[in-house]
Amino acid sequence: MISRNYRSLISKNSIKRYYLSVASDYFPNEPLKPEIISETYPGPINESKLSELAKSFDHRAAYFVADYYKSIGNYIADVDGNKLLDTYCQISSIPLGYNNPELLKACSSKEMQVALANRPALACFPSNDYESILKDGILAAAPRGLDKVWTALSGSDANETAYKAAFMYKAAKKRGNSKFTKEELESVMDNKSPGAPAASILSFDKGFHGRLFGSLSTTRSKPIHKLDIPQFPWPRAPFPSLKYPLEQYSIENQKEEERCLELTEALIKEWPDSIAAIIVEPIQAEGGDNHASPYFYQGLRKLTKAYEILLIVDEVQTGVGASGKFWCHEHLFDPNDPPDIVTFSKKFQAAGFYYKLPELQPDQPFRQFNTWCGDPSKAIIAKTIYNEIIKKNLLHSTKKTGDYIFNNLETLFNGKFFQIVKNLRGKNRGTLIAFDFNTAKERDGFLLECRKNGVNIGGCGDTAVRLRPSLVFEKRHADILLNIVEESLSKLY
Amino acid sequence: MISRNYRSLISKNSIKRYYLSVASDYFPNEPLKPEIISETYPGPINESKLSELAKSFDHRAAYFVADYYKSIGNYIADVDGNKLLDTYCQISSIPLGYNNPELLKACSSKEMQVALANRPALACFPSNDYESILKDGILAAAPRGLDKVWTALSGSDANETAYKAAFMYKAAKKRGNSKFTKEELESVMDNKSPGAPAASILSFDKGFHGRLFGSLSTTRSKPIHKLDIPQFPWPRAPFPSLKYPLEQYSIENQKEEERCLELTEALIKEWPDSIAAIIVEPIQAEGGDNHASPYFYQGLRKLTKAYEILLIVDEVQTGVGASGKFWCHEHLFDPNDPPDIVTFSKKFQAAGFYYKLPELQPDQPFRQFNTWCGDPSKAIIAKTIYNEIIKKNLLHSTKKTGDYIFNNLETLFNGKFFQIVKNLRGKNRGTLIAFDFNTAKERDGFLLECRKNGVNIGGCGDTAVRLRPSLVFEKRHADILLNIVEESLSKLY
Repeated sequence: MISRNYRSLISKNSIKRYYLSVASDYFPNEPLKPEIISETYPGPINESKLSELAKSFDHRAAYFVADYYKSIGNYIADVDGNKLLDTYCQISSIPLGYNNPELLKACSSKEMQVALANRPALACFPSNDYESILKDGILAAAPRGLDKVWTALSGSDANETAYKAAFMYKAAKKRGNSKFTKEELESVMDNKSPGAPAASILSFDKGFHGRLFGSLSTTRSKPIHKLDIPQFPWPRAPFPSLKYPLEQYSIENQKEEERCLELTEALIKEWPDSIAAIIVEPIQAEGGDNHASPYFYQGLRKLTKAYEILLIVDEVQTGVGASGKFWCHEHLFDPNDPPDIVTFSKKFQAAGFYYKLPELQPDQPFRQFNTWCGDPSKAIIAKTIYNEIIKKNLLHSTKKTGDYIFNNLETLFNGKFFQIVKNLRGKNRGTLIAFDFNTAKERDGFLLECRKNGVNIGGCGDTAVRLRPSLVFEKRHADILLNIVEESLSKLY
Repeated sequence: MISRNYRSLISKNSIKRYYLSVASDYFPNEPLKPEIISETYPGPINESKLSELAKSFDHRAAYFVADYYKSIGNYIADVDGNKLLDTYCQISSIPLGYNNPELLKACSSKEMQVALANRPALACFPSNDYESILKDGILAAAPRGLDKVWTALSGSDANETAYKAAFMYKAAKKRGNSKFTKEELESVMDNKSPGAPAASILSFDKGFHGRLFGSLSTTRSKPIHKLDIPQFPWPRAPFPSLKYPLEQYSIENQKEEERCLELTEALIKEWPDSIAAIIVEPIQAEGGDNHASPYFYQGLRKLTKAYEILLIVDEVQTGVGASGKFWCHEHLFDPNDPPDIVTFSKKFQAAGFYYKLPELQPDQPFRQFNTWCGDPSKAIIAKTIYNEIIKKNLLHSTKKTGDYIFNNLETLFNGKFFQIVKNLRGKNRGTLIAFDFNTAKERDGFLLECRKNGVNIGGCGDTAVRLRPSLVFEKRHADILLNIVEESLSKLY
């Protein structure tokens, strides 16, 4: 199927014949295919814009300068007028496509203007409508069993406020009903124990949880993310390294997961009375799209319960629908035994953490506190995103599109590119699909070739390619992606 | 002058006679006085709203639930229909009054909609217009000599990204032209030295720099801000404790500042090769509105230069006009010898840090990095705020209003409340004015009494009252404030 040239696939008739397309409803003017019109790629305007930006702002990580006025649906425009099919989506952060009309409507509402122009300090002067904005949006989307939320501003911020909740919870349990001691009150001002305890968060090798000082201490993705920054001496456990295809290696993989669970338990015993929480991603995204099975996650849940450690699931990259379920951990956990805390950001635009235990709200106000404690303007956007996902049944369509991409990539990679591309993964995880090249150089060459051919794709880990399209990426977009993947591989190999 | 009842002062005629009022231009319908209409205060709707919110969100720090649709100019409305003159302004974060028409216009612009609905990962896919949004706003407001910026999301985030810049800068200088060693690359993944060095940021007693793990390690305001959270073992220097009135204690105060500079230098020597930067506020805000003189700040600048340590000035609370200059440190530093880094947030809505040295941009991309690297929607708001401040000459009017408040409070406090209120401070610092009660209980009682009388005022430190009105707080608002301060004191004492 994917060997047909996409140009033949994308007449409006064929679209109408095959789909009820939400993307077409949202974006009647979405391009039918990528448009690379600059003579060189990247184009000349891009170069001059970047050197202008460079005078005052670090521009060196830029793929290209985008024109968000001209971007539409699944297509991102650059300043040279090129339009690329976007499967990276601002590092997995665009849920409903560019310039989604429902989002634009929410962003021009009176509610939004008032929220932006009068940004409240939410804990001290909560807005009249914050409770209903949460109830109809962020809280309506809450993972089963986690009915409370604390809002923040980014994934790092969400994880760190969750860590703070875990540390205060642990200390309060230990303290019982007693008050802070004089020694605690004094030592903490010098950043010393017992007031500032030597407690820790356990994280996994290759995990990524953010880049501020607490979150970075749990991030174990790459040296370059961490070098030269002081970090807390917290424990690191091994994350399963699965072999693909999964069916072929089921016995080895289960052994690998058992090994990691055992070593995690050994670490817990090595750090007595220290570990307040374990944090884990449902798929280790930045670290290379590393998966583990329900067996591993449910084993972790058992361990954390046995040792009275909190379990935090970091859904910053995996949450909000891309896995085909609203939260990716729902593929992995017993629904009756969810994690203690789930953190979110990125695709939801709003950030924060869900929790269940009332004691995760510290025993006094102003302990889990900061000026803004979130941002109503982002909560309004999250509400719109949640409601569009439900109204348009985007979990179902994302699952379908993901299955279609996976199956076609499987066929392609089992064919003539068998030696080039490996470890296709993300089956039954919606569009959260990834695969590896043999080297970073090969991977980067492939990504560049795809961009030249009109598809923007992201990498992760050392050698992986990750797909992170929006939730309105459909079969016809998938066909273009699949063709360009094949074309690019054919050109390179 | 302040003994006249404000009710007689506020006829429209008197306003016209005495001022060219920017507030009247912006807010023709601004209330002429506070309106407390609920039978009890706080009112019944407030109570029921809070208990609703409490089911899912920590509500215990709430002063009251606000109605931002009905708030206008210097008046904040609550859900019971009360309207309070606001001198706290969302913890010092509302620059141009509630529902400022120019801000509302910016917030309903096409530019804003596109920025919100297509939130970019700014480092990877910068928007076409980000450079011009920065140039006409955040960068136009840059402190003299600091012509580069890195954007962030909050004050904590701004300070921590500045710390990261300082740590990478220090490590790069030490490393020279060599590459990362194998030992560094390996040790950092275990959060160990030399990859994750035992480097530090020196901060001052009573300083406040945020509540995430790195920023909290430099925050020394109160135990309750820090208890039970692991923190880095970083050095803490004494901050001058000045006596008031300043004129009377000039010799003692200079000695106190000398003592603190000497102890800071001793600490630097005690921590050889560790301190990457010193961070200081131009006025220690959360910690109690503690001031020091230009002598102290210029002494710090000299010290940091002598020992090759970076100097970071935290303008999160003091910046963006409230001091009568755009940046408060401009009152304190030699204009030819500014700090290395200035951080901002709050009133600017956008957050980040300014800097000059090109080497504060790390030697490789993706080191100072995260998904969003700021938020164009906030940068658009900052641009609007900056331009209104300039267009309406709000620095000048804020200076005038501040002088007026200070002089009248001085008269009042030197009178019959001499034993009750002390240490009036903030002369020549615009509206950044504060004073102390003898105990926290007395201070809190005063703040509550003021709210009941229709003025919202904030506290800080253990016993201080801080004024943080907007930049459109004018003489007629000051008169109401002064009257209610006097009335409240008279009722209580």
